[in-house]
Amino acid sequence: MTKLTGRPGSLGGLALRAGQFVFAAACMCVMASAPGFTNYTAFCYLIASMGLQALWSLGLGCLDCYALVLKRDLQQAFLMSLFVVGDWVTAILSFAAACSAGGIVVLFERDVYFCRKDPQLPCGRFEVATAFAFLCCALSTASALVIFWLLAAL
Amino acid sequence: MTKLTGRPGSLGGLALRAGQFVFAAACMCVMASAPGFTNYTAFCYLIASMGLQALWSLGLGCLDCYALVLKRDLQQAFLMSLFVVGDWVTAILSFAAACSAGGIVVLFERDVYFCRKDPQLPCGRFEVATAFAFLCCALSTASALVIFWLLAAL
Repeated sequence: MTKLTGRPGSLGGLALRAGQFVFAAACMCVMASAPGFTNYTAFCYLIASMGLQALWSLGLGCLDCYALVLKRDLQQAFLMSLFVVGDWVTAILSFAAACSAGGIVVLFERDVYFCRKDPQLPCGRFEVATAFAFLCCALSTASALVIFWLLAAL
Repeated sequence: MTKLTGRPGSLGGLALRAGQFVFAAACMCVMASAPGFTNYTAFCYLIASMGLQALWSLGLGCLDCYALVLKRDLQQAFLMSLFVVGDWVTAILSFAAACSAGGIVVLFERDVYFCRKDPQLPCGRFEVATAFAFLCCALSTASALVIFWLLAAL
């Protein structure tokens, strides 16, 4: 069995899951604290998608802890297929949400100047939440690639 | 060597490249024919990213034709590593562009009602171009996954 850094059931894998959970939770908190975000579909979708990502990462993180404490091997074909599907679905949804939120932040800042015209609009929080979402996506993509590689090499 | 459908140097691979090129070109044509698209960063980025995707797919499509006609094998570790990097970069850029354009189309249609307020805005063309971009992304992701799988199984 390949000993790739970040594989499920290893310390690296647990660190990736913890990072994903922390960034997804930070993104949700910052976005939820921005008044009026519910007026924009993309920001609502970002919250929903980060919620899913946080739940998935928390679940897999707990499984990694279990495997580490009881020294179990999670690298079985059935489990890996399950992980790869879940990881790819959450990674793609998170990336789509982060990109659409990023597109709207750029639009507000540079194209239609909503941020300048309406000082009440919490553009700073939208930006920080989008940045957290991209960080979460980067870690999520790393997990997805590691698991896909392991599954292909099984 | 694995005989996966859509591998480089096969008819399936050529069909995937042709599809990517056609959808990317269609997206660029429709977006370029929409007056005022240059006012929006995300739509300019969509054109740039689809241009890169079209060039990459055209190049790889020509290589597939060459391999098919001269019966050459493209599945060598060096070539595959090159393809996998190029494919992932173009697929991720295209997906990011499609998602940010999609986010803005939804914003215009449903959140700030720009399409209803300003009948001059070619929302229909923005939507069609975004749809073509997503179709192009789907094919591009298929290519990228096939090549990643083949590289991992080498």
